[in-house]
Amino acid sequence: MFRPEIKVLDCSIRDGGLINKWQFDDEFVRATYQALNEAGVDYMELGYKASPELFDPKDFGKWRFCRDEDVKRLMDGIEPMTQLACMVDIGRVSEKDICPRRDSPFSMIRVACYIKEIDKAIALCNMIMDKGYETTVNIMAVSTNLDREIDEALTDLAETRIPTVYVVDSYGAMYCEDVTFLVKKYREALPGKTIGVHTHNNRQLAFGNTIQAIVDGANMLDASVFGIGRGPGNCCLELLLSFLQNPKFNLRPLLRLIQERYIPLREKIEWGYIIPYMITGMLNEHPRIAIAFRDSAERDNYVKFYDTLVMPEPDEVITRSFKK
Amino acid sequence: MFRPEIKVLDCSIRDGGLINKWQFDDEFVRATYQALNEAGVDYMELGYKASPELFDPKDFGKWRFCRDEDVKRLMDGIEPMTQLACMVDIGRVSEKDICPRRDSPFSMIRVACYIKEIDKAIALCNMIMDKGYETTVNIMAVSTNLDREIDEALTDLAETRIPTVYVVDSYGAMYCEDVTFLVKKYREALPGKTIGVHTHNNRQLAFGNTIQAIVDGANMLDASVFGIGRGPGNCCLELLLSFLQNPKFNLRPLLRLIQERYIPLREKIEWGYIIPYMITGMLNEHPRIAIAFRDSAERDNYVKFYDTLVMPEPDEVITRSFKK
Repeated sequence: MFRPEIKVLDCSIRDGGLINKWQFDDEFVRATYQALNEAGVDYMELGYKASPELFDPKDFGKWRFCRDEDVKRLMDGIEPMTQLACMVDIGRVSEKDICPRRDSPFSMIRVACYIKEIDKAIALCNMIMDKGYETTVNIMAVSTNLDREIDEALTDLAETRIPTVYVVDSYGAMYCEDVTFLVKKYREALPGKTIGVHTHNNRQLAFGNTIQAIVDGANMLDASVFGIGRGPGNCCLELLLSFLQNPKFNLRPLLRLIQERYIPLREKIEWGYIIPYMITGMLNEHPRIAIAFRDSAERDNYVKFYDTLVMPEPDEVITRSFKK
Repeated sequence: MFRPEIKVLDCSIRDGGLINKWQFDDEFVRATYQALNEAGVDYMELGYKASPELFDPKDFGKWRFCRDEDVKRLMDGIEPMTQLACMVDIGRVSEKDICPRRDSPFSMIRVACYIKEIDKAIALCNMIMDKGYETTVNIMAVSTNLDREIDEALTDLAETRIPTVYVVDSYGAMYCEDVTFLVKKYREALPGKTIGVHTHNNRQLAFGNTIQAIVDGANMLDASVFGIGRGPGNCCLELLLSFLQNPKFNLRPLLRLIQERYIPLREKIEWGYIIPYMITGMLNEHPRIAIAFRDSAERDNYVKFYDTLVMPEPDEVITRSFKK
């Protein structure tokens, strides 16, 4: 599939940081940035830009905050080809955390929101665009929304200057038919805007669903190195580049990065095809319950996990706690 | 997707045996058979029926041979719901290895062949059907065949009594568009016959491609427990049952089987998403080169593996040998 409009965004550090509180060592992030540059990836999302007043820097790595001075150190000596992005959550960033674009190493700031926060997301995007950045709105967990809610949000978005809106399968619950349904809906409601796609791999459908979104007309594609990301992770960047026929992409630097950095990392933190995440995906549920389960002593008791979600006892519905 | 015609065939022991020469212990195979019965899976393929003259039983486990007496011991005391199948390869089985259906625990014998062997496959199927068995033809590696060859084979098959013909993605090289192309072609060329699908997971597309085949009209679906199978493995049976809406299927016994048997097994033998298999899938190549590489001292040197296949030195084209 060659379409010159297609852009690829790597979210390895941002989504992967949800596993380890962004506590990557500097060399790891720098090696990732270097390899993405060599691979021809369009954007690298480094993390979340969050207010240090809300999160204690003692508890989180630096990519929870994405301070401009940390980013500049990271890039030092590497010829920049890949543009840098970061993500902001509604209510977790203030205007003073975001300097004008001309003073920043970032060119894009993406806004993640639930559908009920769409007006707040639009206001935040307007502030970001006024400061000179490119922006996107990533509507999370859309697999849990009523069609009426989605249509209303898209109507609001259609009237804005926001250039890109994402279909996000936060729970890894979608089939290719759902992807087609949503990408077509977004395209029809948002003429002139770019449609993005961000998938999760709970059911080994992240890559397949990304291909489906491309076929349906999505042009902004999220992926991560070796699929790193919370729980099951994301669409694998190496798979995505192997599918896209654009000669600007180069797989080889990614293979080196995986063998030297991501294979050793995965021996320390887990992501990938893991049955409790497959079950939350199947049930269209947030992975937090599976994350808690994998952190408990019963982490491989899949039958118990399944029973808890499918046939819950009254107490378990409320607490859903697992023995540590 | 609920369609009463859909049948599911588990190939865990047959395809998984390609990893460990079918050296599963009896309790493992029995637990698998028991769980498949409880899960409502239609068929279980136990292995290959091969002549003991061709393979030394000292080197292979019993599911290389699938002797009827071994199968009867396996089933002892379990109420049989799931029908039993085995596979035969062209030239590796003789007529005397196959007794009449009424004396056999098997109800189905499947024939695997390359497209150039289609006439031999038809003859073998005729013998199998004459003995009273159900049969299928599984045309392997069809992603490497010219359209003309495929059409010729399908024309030959259309004239036979063989009830089921499989689209087989042996190399894990197909995209959903390829699946659609082939399933439609098979359906048009083979009116009245069932179309089957057997996928490999080199690029994490086995489940997605199986869904695509279902949408396109395939009704005989191969899968394996936790995806076990040579190299990257197959479509995960637990994913497939989570997609199919037929109330006869039950996921829970499979989850217990995975946690008690397949997770421990995977610590001893490997299958799943592994970069060298991703590369052979991407290049539409047989996985044997990746299997040899994973058995060498350089098993995680993905860049070297990639270079060997994409930019081979003259010697390497011929030998493709890796340091042990």
